[in-house]
Amino acid sequence: MGLSQPLRGGVHHFDSGPRNLITDVAGVRVGHCTVNECGVHSGVTAILPAPGMLFREKLPAAMHVINGFGKSIGLMQIAELGTLETPILLSNTLAMGTCFSALVRYSLDRNPEIGDTTGTVNPVALECCDMPISDIRALGITEAHAHAALEAADDVFEEGDVGAGNGMVCYDLKGGIGSCSRIIHFHEQQFTIGCLALANFGFLRDLTWDGDPVGVRLAKNREEKPDKGSVILVLATDAPLSDRQLTRLCRRAQSGIARTGGFTGHGSGEIALAFTNAYRIPHFPEPGLLHFSILPETAMDAFFEATVSAVEESISSAMEHSQTRPARLGGTILSFQDARRSLS
Amino acid sequence: MGLSQPLRGGVHHFDSGPRNLITDVAGVRVGHCTVNECGVHSGVTAILPAPGMLFREKLPAAMHVINGFGKSIGLMQIAELGTLETPILLSNTLAMGTCFSALVRYSLDRNPEIGDTTGTVNPVALECCDMPISDIRALGITEAHAHAALEAADDVFEEGDVGAGNGMVCYDLKGGIGSCSRIIHFHEQQFTIGCLALANFGFLRDLTWDGDPVGVRLAKNREEKPDKGSVILVLATDAPLSDRQLTRLCRRAQSGIARTGGFTGHGSGEIALAFTNAYRIPHFPEPGLLHFSILPETAMDAFFEATVSAVEESISSAMEHSQTRPARLGGTILSFQDARRSLS
Amino acid sequence: MGLSQPLRGGVHHFDSGPRNLITDVAGVRVGHCTVNECGVHSGVTAILPAPGMLFREKLPAAMHVINGFGKSIGLMQIAELGTLETPILLSNTLAMGTCFSALVRYSLDRNPEIGDTTGTVNPVALECCDMPISDIRALGITEAHAHAALEAADDVFEEGDVGAGNGMVCYDLKGGIGSCSRIIHFHEQQFTIGCLALANFGFLRDLTWDGDPVGVRLAKNREEKPDKGSVILVLATDAPLSDRQLTRLCRRAQSGIARTGGFTGHGSGEIALAFTNAYRIPHFPEPGLLHFSILPETAMDAFFEATVSAVEESISSAMEHSQTRPARLGGTILSFQDARRSLS
Amino acid sequence: MGLSQPLRGGVHHFDSGPRNLITDVAGVRVGHCTVNECGVHSGVTAILPAPGMLFREKLPAAMHVINGFGKSIGLMQIAELGTLETPILLSNTLAMGTCFSALVRYSLDRNPEIGDTTGTVNPVALECCDMPISDIRALGITEAHAHAALEAADDVFEEGDVGAGNGMVCYDLKGGIGSCSRIIHFHEQQFTIGCLALANFGFLRDLTWDGDPVGVRLAKNREEKPDKGSVILVLATDAPLSDRQLTRLCRRAQSGIARTGGFTGHGSGEIALAFTNAYRIPHFPEPGLLHFSILPETAMDAFFEATVSAVEESISSAMEHSQTRPARLGGTILSFQDARRSLS
Repeated sequence: MGLSQPLRGGVHHFDSGPRNLITDVAGVRVGHCTVNECGVHSGVTAILPAPGMLFREKLPAAMHVINGFGKSIGLMQIAELGTLETPILLSNTLAMGTCFSALVRYSLDRNPEIGDTTGTVNPVALECCDMPISDIRALGITEAHAHAALEAADDVFEEGDVGAGNGMVCYDLKGGIGSCSRIIHFHEQQFTIGCLALANFGFLRDLTWDGDPVGVRLAKNREEKPDKGSVILVLATDAPLSDRQLTRLCRRAQSGIARTGGFTGHGSGEIALAFTNAYRIPHFPEPGLLHFSILPETAMDAFFEATVSAVEESISSAMEHSQTRPARLGGTILSFQDARRSLS
Repeated sequence: MGLSQPLRGGVHHFDSGPRNLITDVAGVRVGHCTVNECGVHSGVTAILPAPGMLFREKLPAAMHVINGFGKSIGLMQIAELGTLETPILLSNTLAMGTCFSALVRYSLDRNPEIGDTTGTVNPVALECCDMPISDIRALGITEAHAHAALEAADDVFEEGDVGAGNGMVCYDLKGGIGSCSRIIHFHEQQFTIGCLALANFGFLRDLTWDGDPVGVRLAKNREEKPDKGSVILVLATDAPLSDRQLTRLCRRAQSGIARTGGFTGHGSGEIALAFTNAYRIPHFPEPGLLHFSILPETAMDAFFEATVSAVEESISSAMEHSQTRPARLGGTILSFQDARRSLS
Repeated sequence: MGLSQPLRGGVHHFDSGPRNLITDVAGVRVGHCTVNECGVHSGVTAILPAPGMLFREKLPAAMHVINGFGKSIGLMQIAELGTLETPILLSNTLAMGTCFSALVRYSLDRNPEIGDTTGTVNPVALECCDMPISDIRALGITEAHAHAALEAADDVFEEGDVGAGNGMVCYDLKGGIGSCSRIIHFHEQQFTIGCLALANFGFLRDLTWDGDPVGVRLAKNREEKPDKGSVILVLATDAPLSDRQLTRLCRRAQSGIARTGGFTGHGSGEIALAFTNAYRIPHFPEPGLLHFSILPETAMDAFFEATVSAVEESISSAMEHSQTRPARLGGTILSFQDARRSLS
Repeated sequence: MGLSQPLRGGVHHFDSGPRNLITDVAGVRVGHCTVNECGVHSGVTAILPAPGMLFREKLPAAMHVINGFGKSIGLMQIAELGTLETPILLSNTLAMGTCFSALVRYSLDRNPEIGDTTGTVNPVALECCDMPISDIRALGITEAHAHAALEAADDVFEEGDVGAGNGMVCYDLKGGIGSCSRIIHFHEQQFTIGCLALANFGFLRDLTWDGDPVGVRLAKNREEKPDKGSVILVLATDAPLSDRQLTRLCRRAQSGIARTGGFTGHGSGEIALAFTNAYRIPHFPEPGLLHFSILPETAMDAFFEATVSAVEESISSAMEHSQTRPARLGGTILSFQDARRSLS
């Protein structure tokens, strides 16, 4: 897992965790359901942010909209309350309704009190558009696919053309799911930040690989295609950050995207979502105050820099783990590896 | 239509349109599908904002989150791009996924280019929780209900316990759908603002009816119930406002809610969405610049005051048009009319 | 102190503290410097939010822009970091630069490390425009006035035509400084919310006094004047709220304004700022985590409702404590008391 | 003017204007007042966005807060109303009050109606902290310095250690004022985007120069210093963009910062402000609607990419034009040119 050659340029002052995946944050699990049938090349990726009952023991969370040309759901309540109370699903744009309903059913099954003696639940699902490869109009993602992704969740998971990443295109090459982790030291403690990217954006000519503007060379003699994509960045940590600090983390994701060459095009929905599983927010609090131990703001720089680094590497890793694929309307979407090979 | 006795107190410097409904804004149509079966007392209300192809000829639009404890969908893209490109659906909280999928299908049917030769579409659906009356866990709303609401859309529509308003509770009395309109004069022109409220919030003791704090009297000798509700305000106009001006309009909705006595409780998801059908934003623009004629900012005060007035009356109208109903867990949700009668 | 007759309508479920002033929140002090010379009828009001070194021991704080037609300073950093590190100054619009410089000097004097071995300081000053009464073009406020207000800060302070309130006009009657407090019970603890309003907004016809739309009667036979004003609401509490919870508090201020009849006009800069002095955020933290005990979100409703109530009463109190005054361009700005007397 | 060697890497698909300065946008002028006396090494830079009466003929404008650890003033009203009505001043953090007052006087002098027969004015001033080089506690900037910068405004201006840039430190090397321009073609029209950076941020090890991570080499054997800086990006254009489109432009500035290696540290106040002088918003509108011709959203990608490119080059240009200087507390702040020379 991770890149075949770790990124060396610029921001790289952090070790990775043992798997170099978002699941290096203890308790986080990721599962895929990949769908290839009748022209549909899509899927669902599920991120379980922590063990236990998420609705009753919510996670501090935050989000940031880098560019709001997108259809992701559940972000408004995260912004208001600073909590996450379901798993996170990733899929294609038109599957957001299906993902919403799947997470509703998932939560109702586990929480008989929802909608009966307590309020409802806030499903969170994030999307990119996979129409360059998949027949998105076929509406091929079902609730069963979402449940399969949730059930497949594990500490170890594949990157590349899997789950929601199946039909993604990034920098006019094959995109998909990428992930990595970073270790941060604070006094005598050690924390982990993990990132998972659903990478589906960018113009080929802009692609920068570990500081190398390889896209300029790759784009020679190729017709330019407009950016119709998006990118989703999910950040996980076991560091005790407040929801406001997590918001600040999310805002650094744009800098990580920029390190891969992206300029956040008009049509690119770019969203960052962050959570910590270091502590929980009870749905039914005990009488009295809640007690928290939080990192001081002065500790944030390491987290910010690690976020930028992790976002850059996750996007690159998504590309490195993906394979050449036919495009829906003819032609081929080259993998980064195949494209690079063609240069030499 | 409209209140049996028009509101007289405070902000009431505006005539209403001929129907005193949001459909006084020419081109706006509203339809309901009301669902009463097997413990489900819910429904869908559809707002068609203008005739023609919404996706190809988008409407300037804006939104404002008064309190983000809610699950409405499609707002992020409205904030980014300032446009609306589908009808608006209202329903119960857990039906948002179904509404999303229904709007996707509605748009794919009408626009073969979506997801094929152009990008995807941004469905907009807004919700309140109707669990005090309806078995929301039954997930009783189907895409067919959403399509029925869309097909039922007309210039004339009912208020009260209809469509999404079926299971709503407002100020611990029966809530639902309410609507009204206001006429605004600007130099020699005349514009209309229409409002449609899905009213489902508030503590009985706070209810203020046209300036009369009747809730204090109604709440005597009754057990207080916590606010688990929400309120959605949809504002329509034929005035040529920019998306920024429409955002400012939305932000005045909170003042209208406050005039009915509400203080925007922690659990009350309160959302305002506004659009104008005075002009369109093309999906496929002609070469060159787009030309707009927009109201000057100095004209906004009348629009702001009319918005406050229309929001207040729409909420009151929702309550006046609703009927006493059994509560899901026993007991009765009184209508405002019945409750007021009990006072005298 | 407080209104001659407490507000009785609608939202009034809270006792007031002993002084019914913002200074019922222990540690908060308020001082005025009132300036009447050469056509200048203005002043400065200072709010000291807590004893001790504010820069080294910051206060959790938040702000909300209801309508951003205003020139207040220091709000951006509060939004980012959630802390307040200086006293708060209120004055007229064009005096904001002077207030900034005065707070810089105040902080440099007390903190030799600022700008030397640590970073700079974020002055917070909030404004309304007093041009209907005062010659604002004379730029009559000096740093000495600001320092005089800071030095005058005390537990007990006057309301009405004092300090920054000197030249204010509210609902076309005399406005100024108003304040009150509310007691909130949470399990076995008792907390206080205090509010201070600088009230300078509104159309006379809209004025609602404790639920009575008296403005309609007062406005008869009077020429309507456009709203050129603004309103500033400062909220203080000793309850341990997070900066996110304080933001939510601020957002309820609009509902309190609406209860007095205001609809937040285009030209009315309306800003709410809240802080708690229940705990501090150290500028130079000890090694390790910071420990906080915070109210659960489910406790917020009482705080929200108390905020709405306190904002309403503070604005009313500003008007009740103010005296009839000559207008700058001729004519008279009546006090509310004199205007009401004229009705009977 | 411009870099000695134009940037070649990644995003560079745009020609520059004739001066390669923000003043390539016709009507924009820039002036400096540089102050070196008694330990103060600071200054003021003024940007005049257009000829004529700015208050009466306002410019569409927008802003974006990348990281709000800063004290800039005037941004709230720009966000609300989307207009700029004064020149823009840049200076050191503690001079913001002085800049506010200077712009008030500038506007009162030119507009006898302000504060008399019409409302007040919104001064805009943006800051970075120059304490590593200058005695910021001396409060050495006066209103006279601000007026001198305004009067010095011209089509041609210096970059580097001038005006507000005098005491700036960027990537632990000498920072300052940098600028450039980009030409954009749209159908048969040609538009210009100009950028002016006040560059004062970053860790040396992160510095990336035109794609080369030179900071890694420069930082060897040097003690790491924490980032205490900030960066201000002013974007000017003659393209007819709406205020919402200008906001979107501002949000791309972060990607340009990232291209120079910056990760937007906790203490780095990073603000982007954009305006167009392609059309005006009248303070006293004629009766009737305002007519605008605006670029379609689909044209934005070129503007976004040009913004990223211009921000990157402006920051680099600030560094290339600056000279080695003594630090306030001993030692030397090397210029980029001297530092690079030391490598070879």
